[in-house]
Amino acid sequence: MVTRMADPIITLTTDFGEDSPYVAAMKGVILALNPQARVVDLGHQIPAQDLRYAAFFLKSALPYFPAGVIHTVVVDPGVGSDRAILYVECGGHRLLVPDNGCWTELPGAHSSAVRVIRLTEEAYWRRPVSATFHGRDIFAPVAAHLSLGVPPERLGTPAGDWVRLAIAPPRRDGDGWVGEVVFVDHFGNLITNIPGEALAALPAGRVEVQVGERLLRPLRVRTYAEAVGADVVALVSSSGMLEVAVPNGSAARLLGARPGTGVRLLDGSVAGPGG
Amino acid sequence: MVTRMADPIITLTTDFGEDSPYVAAMKGVILALNPQARVVDLGHQIPAQDLRYAAFFLKSALPYFPAGVIHTVVVDPGVGSDRAILYVECGGHRLLVPDNGCWTELPGAHSSAVRVIRLTEEAYWRRPVSATFHGRDIFAPVAAHLSLGVPPERLGTPAGDWVRLAIAPPRRDGDGWVGEVVFVDHFGNLITNIPGEALAALPAGRVEVQVGERLLRPLRVRTYAEAVGADVVALVSSSGMLEVAVPNGSAARLLGARPGTGVRLLDGSVAGPGG
Amino acid sequence: MVTRMADPIITLTTDFGEDSPYVAAMKGVILALNPQARVVDLGHQIPAQDLRYAAFFLKSALPYFPAGVIHTVVVDPGVGSDRAILYVECGGHRLLVPDNGCWTELPGAHSSAVRVIRLTEEAYWRRPVSATFHGRDIFAPVAAHLSLGVPPERLGTPAGDWVRLAIAPPRRDGDGWVGEVVFVDHFGNLITNIPGEALAALPAGRVEVQVGERLLRPLRVRTYAEAVGADVVALVSSSGMLEVAVPNGSAARLLGARPGTGVRLLDGSVAGPGG
Repeated sequence: MVTRMADPIITLTTDFGEDSPYVAAMKGVILALNPQARVVDLGHQIPAQDLRYAAFFLKSALPYFPAGVIHTVVVDPGVGSDRAILYVECGGHRLLVPDNGCWTELPGAHSSAVRVIRLTEEAYWRRPVSATFHGRDIFAPVAAHLSLGVPPERLGTPAGDWVRLAIAPPRRDGDGWVGEVVFVDHFGNLITNIPGEALAALPAGRVEVQVGERLLRPLRVRTYAEAVGADVVALVSSSGMLEVAVPNGSAARLLGARPGTGVRLLDGSVAGPGG
Repeated sequence: MVTRMADPIITLTTDFGEDSPYVAAMKGVILALNPQARVVDLGHQIPAQDLRYAAFFLKSALPYFPAGVIHTVVVDPGVGSDRAILYVECGGHRLLVPDNGCWTELPGAHSSAVRVIRLTEEAYWRRPVSATFHGRDIFAPVAAHLSLGVPPERLGTPAGDWVRLAIAPPRRDGDGWVGEVVFVDHFGNLITNIPGEALAALPAGRVEVQVGERLLRPLRVRTYAEAVGADVVALVSSSGMLEVAVPNGSAARLLGARPGTGVRLLDGSVAGPGG
Repeated sequence: MVTRMADPIITLTTDFGEDSPYVAAMKGVILALNPQARVVDLGHQIPAQDLRYAAFFLKSALPYFPAGVIHTVVVDPGVGSDRAILYVECGGHRLLVPDNGCWTELPGAHSSAVRVIRLTEEAYWRRPVSATFHGRDIFAPVAAHLSLGVPPERLGTPAGDWVRLAIAPPRRDGDGWVGEVVFVDHFGNLITNIPGEALAALPAGRVEVQVGERLLRPLRVRTYAEAVGADVVALVSSSGMLEVAVPNGSAARLLGARPGTGVRLLDGSVAGPGG
C-alpha cells in the first residue's frame, strides 16, 4: 500500500429533493472537472427555500467535519437575482453559499477570523450560466476547482459585509426563558433555541414548558429511555438545547408545533398557567 | 502523493425508493466484485416504472458527467419478461439500461455513432438470476465487470434495433406551440417540452400559456427573482425549455398540473381564450 | 497507476430520515478521524425504531457486501438506556449495532462462529458522549477507528449473550403455511416470511393465499411480466420468499396489509375460506 493524501471531499446540501435530477447534474459537473473528488451527500430535503432550517442543519452537521472539506450549500431563494455567491472560511470550514445568511449561525461565524470572498471570476463557472440553476453552473464548478487546488483569492474579491440571518436569540424572562422551536426532527422531537443549561438549572419537579398555547409539565429526563410512562418529556438535545419529546410518539403532531412555534421554559413554582 | 488514475465511477438511478434494501444490495454486489469502484447515487425516487420521468431525469443529468462513467439505470416495468438489457454508448456516455427506451431522449441517441450491445453473456451475471431482481443479479455485476475493464463486446451481441420512447414532440400551431408538461420539480415548477426560444420570440406583454384548461397571462421573467408580485411566471428552464412557475408557491398544485398535462404557448394578441 | 488496497468502506443504515442533519454529523465524525474512509449510505428511512424492518433490511442487503466492510446500524429505540452497543462478526460481515436483535436474522447469526464484543472502551468514543445521539458519539468514531485498523478486541469485552429478535418463524399448518408480511416494498408488494418453495410445491391452479381477512386466488407467476391481466399474483420474491403483488398496483393498499399482517398459504383444493 502506498501512503497518499486522501482524495478531496466535496459535500452537497440542497433543497432540491431526493427525486431531482438537479443534484445528479451537480455531481456530474464536479466529477467532470475533478474525477478524483469524493462527493458526499449531506441532505437534499431541506424544506424549499427554508433558510432557518438550512442554518440549523449546517450548524448541526458541519462542525464535525475535518478542515479542508468543501461544503456546497444550495438553498437559494434568490437564485438569479443580484444576490452574491460567497466562498467562506469560518471556524476551520470552507463553504460555498448564497449570500443569504444560512451560514451565519455556525460556530465562529461572528469571529474576526472569518474570510469571505464574493465569487466574480467567471473563468471558474460553466458557460453559459443559466438564470435559474446556479448550483450546476456556478457552485459545482467552483467547488471542483477548489478541490483541484485553485486558491480562493482567485475566485473573486474579498467581501467585508454579508447578509446575517435574523433569528431572534432566546431571552431570559423573569425566572424562565422565551424562545422557539428551531427544528423538528424525523421522530417529531422539538429542538428549541433555549440553552440546555436552563433546563438543568430548574429544581426537580418544577419544570414547566409552554409550547404555543399549551402549558405542559414534562418529566425532565436525561435520555429517551428514562421516559417510559411519561406523556411529555423535556431533555437536553444532542446539540445542547432544550428538547421536548413524546415517548414513542411525535411531539410535533401532538402539540401542533413546528419551526417558529413559541416556547417558554418556566419554573412551575413561580409562574403558573396565567403567568 | 502518487499520481494515479481515479477509481472508476458507477452511478445508480432506480425507482426503488430511498427506503429500499434493493439499492443497498446492488451496492454490495458492485463492491464485492470491485472494491475500488465508487458508487454514486443519482436518484432512487423515479416514480415507479415511469419511463417518461426516467427519460427526463437521464437527459437532465447524464450529459454533465465525464466520459467513462458507467450509468446503471433500473427503471424496469418489464423485469422478468424477455425484454433485453442493453449496454449503450451514446454521446460519450456508457449506460446499462433495460430495453424500454428510457435512454433514447439523450443527446446523441439518434446518431449513427450509438453502440448498443444486448447482454447475453451470463458469465458476468450473478448465479442464479432471480426472476424479479435483475438490478442485483445482472445490472450490478455487469457494471462492476465493466469498471474492472471487461470490454463491452464480451457482454453480449451487437444490437441493431431497440425500443424508442414514444414521447410526442412539441409542434407549432399557428403562431404558437402545443406541447406538454414533462417534469414537475420539487418546488412544483412545470417544465415543458416546448423550446425556450419560442417564449423569447413572443413580443413582451403578449405571452399567453394554457395549462390544461387554464388560460394564463404569465409574466415573462428571466429568473425567479424578477417574479416578485406576479401570480404566475413563464421563463426558460435550466434545461432550455418553457417553464411555468408560481413565485413562492407550487404551479403544479395551483394549476392541477402533472407530467402529461397539455400546454400551449400563445401569442396573446392573436389567439384568445377561444383560439 | 499504482496497485494499492482499496480505501476502507463504512456503510450507514439508520432511521434518521433523509432530511436529518444527524446522518451528516455522523459522516463528519467518520471523515474527521479517517479522511480516506468511503462512507456508503444503505438507507436512512427505516421506519422509526422499527426493529423488524431493520432486520429485514439488513438480511436483504448485507450478505451481498464483501468481507471487511464495516456496517454501522443505528436503529436504536433504547438510546441512552443501559442497552449495550455491540461489535459483531457474523457470516463474514462486521457490524456495529445496538444490542436489540436487529442483526440476529442475518445468515450465520446463530452459528458458533459469531463473535460479539460489547463496546466499553471509551478511548474510541467522542467526548463528551451525549445522552441521545450515540450514532455521532459512539457508533461513528468506533467505525472510523475500526477502519483505521484498530483490532476489535480493543473496543471492549467479549459478550456471550445478546438480545435476539422475537420474530415468530412461519409454520406448517396442515397442507399449508401460516406466516406474516415482513416487508412492504416501494411498489406495495408484500414480502412474507413463508418460504418460496412452499408456493412452488402447490399444484397449479390450486394456490390460495389469505392476507389478513382476505382470501385470494392469486395467479402463480414467475415474474411480474407474466402477470398481465391478473388481479393478484403470487410469486417467489428476490429473497426467496412468498410474495403477493398486484400488477401495476399496490397490494399493500388494495389489501390493507402491512408488516405484521397475517398471511396463510393454502392448497385451494383442500382448505376453503372456512378452512
